[in-house]
Amino acid sequence: MKKINDGCRLLNLKQTARFLKKHDNYIILTHASPDGDTLGSAYALYYGLNETGKSACVLCPDVIPQKYGYFATKTDHVSRENATVIAVDVADKRLLGSLGDEFGDVVDLNIDHHISNVRYAKNLYLDSDASSTAECIFELLTVMGVNINDITAKALFTGIVTDTGCFKYSNVTAKTHIIAAQLYEYNIDAPEINRVMFDTKSRELLELERMVLDASEFHFDNRCIILPVTAEMQEKTGCSGTELEGIAVISRSVEGVVAGVTLKQVGEREFKLSLRTYPPLDASEICKKLGGGGHKAAAGASVTGTLEEAKQKVLSAVGEYME
Amino acid sequence: MKKINDGCRLLNLKQTARFLKKHDNYIILTHASPDGDTLGSAYALYYGLNETGKSACVLCPDVIPQKYGYFATKTDHVSRENATVIAVDVADKRLLGSLGDEFGDVVDLNIDHHISNVRYAKNLYLDSDASSTAECIFELLTVMGVNINDITAKALFTGIVTDTGCFKYSNVTAKTHIIAAQLYEYNIDAPEINRVMFDTKSRELLELERMVLDASEFHFDNRCIILPVTAEMQEKTGCSGTELEGIAVISRSVEGVVAGVTLKQVGEREFKLSLRTYPPLDASEICKKLGGGGHKAAAGASVTGTLEEAKQKVLSAVGEYME
Repeated sequence: MKKINDGCRLLNLKQTARFLKKHDNYIILTHASPDGDTLGSAYALYYGLNETGKSACVLCPDVIPQKYGYFATKTDHVSRENATVIAVDVADKRLLGSLGDEFGDVVDLNIDHHISNVRYAKNLYLDSDASSTAECIFELLTVMGVNINDITAKALFTGIVTDTGCFKYSNVTAKTHIIAAQLYEYNIDAPEINRVMFDTKSRELLELERMVLDASEFHFDNRCIILPVTAEMQEKTGCSGTELEGIAVISRSVEGVVAGVTLKQVGEREFKLSLRTYPPLDASEICKKLGGGGHKAAAGASVTGTLEEAKQKVLSAVGEYME
Repeated sequence: MKKINDGCRLLNLKQTARFLKKHDNYIILTHASPDGDTLGSAYALYYGLNETGKSACVLCPDVIPQKYGYFATKTDHVSRENATVIAVDVADKRLLGSLGDEFGDVVDLNIDHHISNVRYAKNLYLDSDASSTAECIFELLTVMGVNINDITAKALFTGIVTDTGCFKYSNVTAKTHIIAAQLYEYNIDAPEINRVMFDTKSRELLELERMVLDASEFHFDNRCIILPVTAEMQEKTGCSGTELEGIAVISRSVEGVVAGVTLKQVGEREFKLSLRTYPPLDASEICKKLGGGGHKAAAGASVTGTLEEAKQKVLSAVGEYME
């Protein structure tokens, strides 16, 4: 078995800055199902490299959602021969999706903040204390002495707010706020970015939320909520993919609930479980019982059967820890 | 007619600090229906004055919601004779609620950030560029050289996040983030404060939201949403008062909606309209037509009739601007 970190060189901030100054013709890769951080980081790096006279392009394995259009513009073309390949916010080459076959084994530099990074690239800049990869890119551009434009600042701010739930989560540090303060010096229209990222939902998603709440159930003395997202609901509303992520957030926001269960139907007899827990419950432990895994507060698993069967399987696994 | 600002002396930050150092026996008043900013400001000031050896107490016209218990503790007793009365985050003496009769005309110092402040106190420190009164109190304690404790920092952080929607709104400035960064140096458990303030809703409120969504209606090609909160819904779920504020937020978060209408039943034939708009619509202009008023993006009015009649009145007023 090949060691996953075989030959991966860890760089510090200055070494990474030197790397970027030395090379040219950058292809910057984002992860699949792109979010604000992978896109914000990729485009901020793209604009930064452009400022220093380098050629660069951004490649995303999936279609970039329109809402990021205020910074995710058309980039230059960079030939794949002799290109320097950078992956940003991509902890594992498997997350490169459709770009994985072509680029998975030839990433020259990986810039990331995930502690779970599997070290697949030739060089890695990893700051697992950073709230977001965008925070790393901000520091990198600062160390490089690169001029930050308004659009670069918008991309960076988007990466930071989307990965921190607008400064809400435990990954935020004093440094995150100091960087935010510096980005406010640019013309970024932060309230509008925040509105688009956090206070906008489609009519279809509102309709789906209504259906999900109608079908919700409480168990274990209201300490567990189940939110079913059936195939029928998804078809009727046309909501799918990342749009549905907010449902799991609802499941952990109800007072008294320590286990928030979202069951999204992905096949005729297959459900994707998203489990959100509060201590002493450990979501990863419970999901392991169901053949899945994840973090302490958020984990997932694949559960087969009808909706009723899937519910029972999950309730039985959760029940073992409900004391 | 008596001029409302007759005899109100405007103080700057240093003068306010001097005022606080000079006097003693402080009674600190919050506004009625207390929120995180009025409470956070009052308690931070209380702890700060305590640190300098002054006697102080906090008086709130209403019961303080339990969720603020991590900083809103029992304060000293201060005799009303010879007391120095301070009102924080109270823009108008009418907002003192049940404390208005006793204290409305004897406020010695008013510390506030509302540009609409009616200057009812003897002395006023007003910083309308501050995101929150808590931001003013932080600066005040800093200028006074007062030691900030963890609990003081928690109170200040709560005031800032609750008035800014966790750094989401347009009142946030670079300074807000710089202060947040400084507060992170204390043991404040910011993620937990944010969770309690933003990601916690009661089971009853979830149930009410479900009912409201079930009864929601779109009009004018989906550019207007109506969310009815009937007396029956409020009775069935037991939700009322400030708990219902989140409903109006939903009304302005739907993509494509430029007029979000929340109609909360407050009497058999009376509804409280909360209107949230996006440009070019002007909520205050529309509400004025209905005998109410407010701001450009958020305004209100009282509408009489059955729910159907109230809806028609609002739709007709909104319709005049829907082109």
